[in-house]
Amino acid sequence: MSYNLIPNYDINGLVPAIIQDADTHQVLMLGYMNAESLQKTIDTGQTYFWSRSRKVLWHKGETSGNTQQVTSIYLDCDCDSLLVLVHPSGPACHTGAVSCFFQLMENQ
Amino acid sequence: MSYNLIPNYDINGLVPAIIQDADTHQVLMLGYMNAESLQKTIDTGQTYFWSRSRKVLWHKGETSGNTQQVTSIYLDCDCDSLLVLVHPSGPACHTGAVSCFFQLMENQ
Repeated sequence: MSYNLIPNYDINGLVPAIIQDADTHQVLMLGYMNAESLQKTIDTGQTYFWSRSRKVLWHKGETSGNTQQVTSIYLDCDCDSLLVLVHPSGPACHTGAVSCFFQLMENQ
Repeated sequence: MSYNLIPNYDINGLVPAIIQDADTHQVLMLGYMNAESLQKTIDTGQTYFWSRSRKVLWHKGETSGNTQQVTSIYLDCDCDSLLVLVHPSGPACHTGAVSCFFQLMENQ
């Protein structure tokens, strides 16, 4: 599948992708996509990322089974961030938490 | 105000910050914070960012009036992204859109 909008990839060829639960609207994680992982995400309907630490394409849930089924992808106004709405098969976080954002830093 | 959790800033001293409406749960924008803008955000209770293009500290809403009142800040599991919940005073986007993520790229 092709698409008309093209992200503005950064100097490393990456764009940050916010992953949000399509039903609960909880923000689950932030990952990075390169052109290949975005294309795989669109083609398969499941999230793929570029692992900056391991420097490999990474299919979310490939070992844990906690894949994320994509419902829609939005690009922001200056085309340098993605918002990906998903139906998750399980927790997003490797710790077992539903969302990676479980550490409360500040409450006002 | 001080805080115990410290973000893992990237090589440019920045961390991506997802801004989400605390009430509607709509994802409004993604900005970047350095240590100074995070501290200003915590101290004032309004969002401050680092503008990568203009290379200046940027108080969201300083010209438009569309400030964002912070309710809480979360750090993700590996401490390299922030999730900031806010009450926005107006649209997040410079185009007048409520959210910067208004360009639908893909629908599955």
